[in-house]
Amino acid sequence: MKLVVIGGNPAGLSAASAVRRAHRDWIIDVYEKGPYISYGSCGLPYYISGIVEDRDKLITITKEQFLEKRNIPVHIYQEVLSVNFNAKIVKVKDIKTNEIFEKGYDYLVIATGGKPKIRPEITLEHNNIFHVHTIEDADRVKNSLIRNDFKSGILLGAGYINLEMIEAYKALGIDDLTIVGPRLIFRTKSQDYIKEELEKHGIKVILGKYVKSLEAVSDKRLKISLGNGDSLEADFVQISIGVVPNTDIFNNTKLKMVRGAIIVDEYMRTNVENVFAAGDCTMVYHQILKQNMYIPLAPAANKQGRIAGNTIAGNKVDPFPGVVGTSVWKVFDLYCGKTGITGAEAKGLGYETDSVLIESNEIAHYYPNRGNQFELKMTTYLLFNVKTHHLLGAEITAPSPLGGKKIDVLATALAAKMKIEDIQKLDLSYAPPFAPVWDSILIAANVARKKCR
Amino acid sequence: MKLVVIGGNPAGLSAASAVRRAHRDWIIDVYEKGPYISYGSCGLPYYISGIVEDRDKLITITKEQFLEKRNIPVHIYQEVLSVNFNAKIVKVKDIKTNEIFEKGYDYLVIATGGKPKIRPEITLEHNNIFHVHTIEDADRVKNSLIRNDFKSGILLGAGYINLEMIEAYKALGIDDLTIVGPRLIFRTKSQDYIKEELEKHGIKVILGKYVKSLEAVSDKRLKISLGNGDSLEADFVQISIGVVPNTDIFNNTKLKMVRGAIIVDEYMRTNVENVFAAGDCTMVYHQILKQNMYIPLAPAANKQGRIAGNTIAGNKVDPFPGVVGTSVWKVFDLYCGKTGITGAEAKGLGYETDSVLIESNEIAHYYPNRGNQFELKMTTYLLFNVKTHHLLGAEITAPSPLGGKKIDVLATALAAKMKIEDIQKLDLSYAPPFAPVWDSILIAANVARKKCR
Repeated sequence: MKLVVIGGNPAGLSAASAVRRAHRDWIIDVYEKGPYISYGSCGLPYYISGIVEDRDKLITITKEQFLEKRNIPVHIYQEVLSVNFNAKIVKVKDIKTNEIFEKGYDYLVIATGGKPKIRPEITLEHNNIFHVHTIEDADRVKNSLIRNDFKSGILLGAGYINLEMIEAYKALGIDDLTIVGPRLIFRTKSQDYIKEELEKHGIKVILGKYVKSLEAVSDKRLKISLGNGDSLEADFVQISIGVVPNTDIFNNTKLKMVRGAIIVDEYMRTNVENVFAAGDCTMVYHQILKQNMYIPLAPAANKQGRIAGNTIAGNKVDPFPGVVGTSVWKVFDLYCGKTGITGAEAKGLGYETDSVLIESNEIAHYYPNRGNQFELKMTTYLLFNVKTHHLLGAEITAPSPLGGKKIDVLATALAAKMKIEDIQKLDLSYAPPFAPVWDSILIAANVARKKCR
Repeated sequence: MKLVVIGGNPAGLSAASAVRRAHRDWIIDVYEKGPYISYGSCGLPYYISGIVEDRDKLITITKEQFLEKRNIPVHIYQEVLSVNFNAKIVKVKDIKTNEIFEKGYDYLVIATGGKPKIRPEITLEHNNIFHVHTIEDADRVKNSLIRNDFKSGILLGAGYINLEMIEAYKALGIDDLTIVGPRLIFRTKSQDYIKEELEKHGIKVILGKYVKSLEAVSDKRLKISLGNGDSLEADFVQISIGVVPNTDIFNNTKLKMVRGAIIVDEYMRTNVENVFAAGDCTMVYHQILKQNMYIPLAPAANKQGRIAGNTIAGNKVDPFPGVVGTSVWKVFDLYCGKTGITGAEAKGLGYETDSVLIESNEIAHYYPNRGNQFELKMTTYLLFNVKTHHLLGAEITAPSPLGGKKIDVLATALAAKMKIEDIQKLDLSYAPPFAPVWDSILIAANVARKKCR
């Protein structure tokens, strides 16, 4: 049997590995158009900031190791141009030689990932405009920072990447930084805590303003105009306004997609026989919204890759039930997490909801946090159905990763369809270095319970 | 209505507060035999070590504040000697004046807490023998450390308190320390990681040996003899071999107890009408063992106090379903947690079990942990029913509190009666400072799933 995998990212490689473990004799080929395999964009801000000194550390496994350990060749600089689903053939271009060849398959895994979202107003190409999606992007930023003495920068978009990149730029000595976005990930009062943290570090924050244009003032200077007539200039602009599926080659094929994201079932099967898809090129089922969504995040991508591979291999494998919408991120010394749905989404589902946002200590009030600091306050937000008492969503901001990662308890509660009273009763752990006696989640649930019918 | 509460600890004060919130006109009196109210013994090691400089910080609320904020008098140095359940009267002794008086009640809350367990072999009284249960105990240790130049110490018992006290003594410059206990809390290979951490800090660890006697060598020197003929000497001995219910005054009364622990229902009602009990003097229902256990830990005590008070007040309140056996603790730079039951307990319940213990990174392999350290390894142990696939227990050791507190995810999974395949599918959060893409819990579940039938 012949398996072809398009994309040398973790989703594609997971699928290939699972097949190889079951079938030593299958012919498996992975095609990757870039020079690197097996990394996520999540680590790039830390490479740019210098927290991660060695770029190789971002890569979990090299193509040489993958060949040696798994006996699977990963062909870098080889771009799949198209797929003939009827003939079961992929057309591949060798980017270095421009040679084009065809390769047949019995099974195909599409793991083409995502690519940076763009908007027509901000498509300008300029030496000092950056994206951070690939290792090559990160190298370009690093080299540009060495060559230029940037004093100011504007970050367009206020998602995970840019909130992490701000810290990188600040750490590299660029003091005049502005972030421009619709909001700061959260859609509740929780985002005030992020704004405060950014401003505490001297970052200017512009929210909810439409970005009308991005222009070059000179080859060293850029200008952004906002819908309200304001404009701002800086030495560089970094754009990160989201990710879209990297699936253009499947436009006008029989592969079923929604807004470019491939539709898969709970075993990562597409609508085309023997064709599977996994990772940031796919839709993922949202268990609380009860519909497919485009949420390109690494944990689901890795699970999907594993399940796709095991399904192809013929292994018994549990179906993928989708996600509940969990994520965590760091903004300077604030560690944030969210899971579930928003108030607006809950309203869209017809739920009658209420919410609580409580401030509490992350750990015992007398225990020093992170060495000598006594900044212990964290916030916990719960959204719930006032009639059925079911938890619908949660948000956390905290002074250390300990607090941010507590979002997982609420993600688990969501997966278990817990009610607020179930959460109140959870036997959560306590010791002074870990939590107060009343864990913030229990305090929030106690307050929420009073608002339930 | 008249409410009497015996014990000025968090359980008793929670109950009193809940009643007061509902009934401004009730007469409420709290009797506390010691000088301090509203603290837990969990903070004492950090006070002794100096991490917590100010003793007052250990106290959540003073009696003056409690009177002012809640309008509830807490009578310190007033010991309840006995209760006449038929006449609904408590007999109280003022420890300072030796005056004895009686007080009637309509409702009684017993929150007498726990006291250090003793064994006949180690009842010696000596200036250099310490217990750490009350603030007075902690002061005695601190004063003794100032007066004496201790070079060596033996800690009898290897539970939460002593594992934390070792670090305190070490921080205070005492280098020759030995811990003696049946085991290091865990009953699996997980305890090897604790042993390694202790030995890394120069602590001698003696496990599984019977302690035959504790004798004075001089007024400055103590000797312990072990069952195997070995003996060891040190300048001081700290004893902390467990906690037992502080309920002697109820022996030979109609109050129903098991091994001194008061039996309560899910609303904290005892078998005596209008008499409630909460905290470390009670049995607590273990949801996985499906039986009452004596597990004196603060989170349950606080929940019980709240429920007792609300029940007495006539408020609608959800019953207390008991615990799943969660706890966390710190041993130098190792952060540990456990939840659920042990393999032996599972066998006792007739379950056919298997387990996994995996090593993984706590956070992304390229992200520096706690500043500049790259000690990222954590361990995750899962015990499960191989037939039904249900999770039964879990243990974690980790290099930071972030990893230790992840035990709460598994405590939540236990409360939700999750199977291993449910845990595999959890949408746990990921970002490099918080976790690897495959969270340790997911890795462990993936391995465990292969061992399920």
